[in-house]
Amino acid sequence: MKPLRVVLVSPRNPLNIGAAARAMSNFGFSELRLVNPYEVAFREAKSAVKSQGILEQAREFPTVAEAVADCSLVIGTTSKGHRALEHPLRRLETGGRILRKQLASVPVALLFGSEKFGLGNDDMSHCHWLLRIPAREEHGSMNLGQAVAVCLYEIIRSPSAAAAKPDPRRPASAADLERITALLEDVLERSGYVHARVEGSTALKVRRLIRRMNLNAHDAEVWLGILRQILWKLVS
Amino acid sequence: MKPLRVVLVSPRNPLNIGAAARAMSNFGFSELRLVNPYEVAFREAKSAVKSQGILEQAREFPTVAEAVADCSLVIGTTSKGHRALEHPLRRLETGGRILRKQLASVPVALLFGSEKFGLGNDDMSHCHWLLRIPAREEHGSMNLGQAVAVCLYEIIRSPSAAAAKPDPRRPASAADLERITALLEDVLERSGYVHARVEGSTALKVRRLIRRMNLNAHDAEVWLGILRQILWKLVS
Repeated sequence: MKPLRVVLVSPRNPLNIGAAARAMSNFGFSELRLVNPYEVAFREAKSAVKSQGILEQAREFPTVAEAVADCSLVIGTTSKGHRALEHPLRRLETGGRILRKQLASVPVALLFGSEKFGLGNDDMSHCHWLLRIPAREEHGSMNLGQAVAVCLYEIIRSPSAAAAKPDPRRPASAADLERITALLEDVLERSGYVHARVEGSTALKVRRLIRRMNLNAHDAEVWLGILRQILWKLVS
Repeated sequence: MKPLRVVLVSPRNPLNIGAAARAMSNFGFSELRLVNPYEVAFREAKSAVKSQGILEQAREFPTVAEAVADCSLVIGTTSKGHRALEHPLRRLETGGRILRKQLASVPVALLFGSEKFGLGNDDMSHCHWLLRIPAREEHGSMNLGQAVAVCLYEIIRSPSAAAAKPDPRRPASAADLERITALLEDVLERSGYVHARVEGSTALKVRRLIRRMNLNAHDAEVWLGILRQILWKLVS
């Protein structure tokens, strides 16, 4: 992948600059650019502990035009759906996928506006299109660091992981389940839970009960041990 | 959807508690629970401006067991892949989808550990399974507020939005494109850009050039106006 340039336009809060850098590090991005940052905030962010590398290498630019000059695709972010009608607006789910595809061949800049006002019309005029984070409009803007984290997550998000089988643990074998069933039946009988006259239907109930536990192979071993111990105590 | 209970276990930093509440508000969740929070931090977070409602209604519990007692599914979060082998571990892309489905029928608790240590083994033992945010393992943990934002985004993330046609703007008609092509050719000729002997090949080049602009209907109008004006100036 070509580098993604995360561009913060006029950030004011050192904690947000730091949080953006941290999210970049979390999700494997390294190129941070700041347009006209509040100098005190940038200095303070750089002196914080986390994500040192990214902040130390972060570059400052006086204008958006200069910050995105070497990028072939410039994308702005917004959490508002209404105001940017002059621009194509894509929801993050769609836009993130397009952005990821484009990153394979060209350098892309992703712009985030200031904490208070977001991207201005002038900033947006440099963008090919806008990415909308599907947050509730009533609430207003998102926190800058959180917006960066959510966008970067969508970019590295793997559709194949979503389709993948989640639980790699081996399920218990039918033989183990049947061993557990037999042991539990024995325990129930010896403990007086089961009366002779309902024994037949209980066996079926126990078998189904055990199957509904969705045991994995390891837990089946544990249950076998537990039941053997209980049985040993009951007969001794 | 049933309510999702966002449970912060032993949070220490008021900014993180506030950020979690803000992300909840952004993505439309309201039920925040805190287990054994650092009292000063909780008070300070409550006195902050944003997301007042969620923090005011946030409930405190002394233990994880009490905080999740009314939930039928309890899910822990981690950004580490290795340490939680006793639990089924699902990547956020998969786990988020399962969580969303479950929310349709049962109340679900989503646990986040403290800033410094994440969820402890004791906290995790209350969980049916764990959700792993696919961050780089080398970097260590994510910021708490950002982790909450990313998880909630995945839960409200709409697969149908990802499949939707992103740009609702009507593309320019072939007729408009041809009008622009003709006007531009005229302009090029009158401005002396085109020499008579290469005129034929230029016409094709201009036609292709205009098609590659991917104009929408509105921008085609704008270009027609621009070219007409230039032409008027050239012949006057």
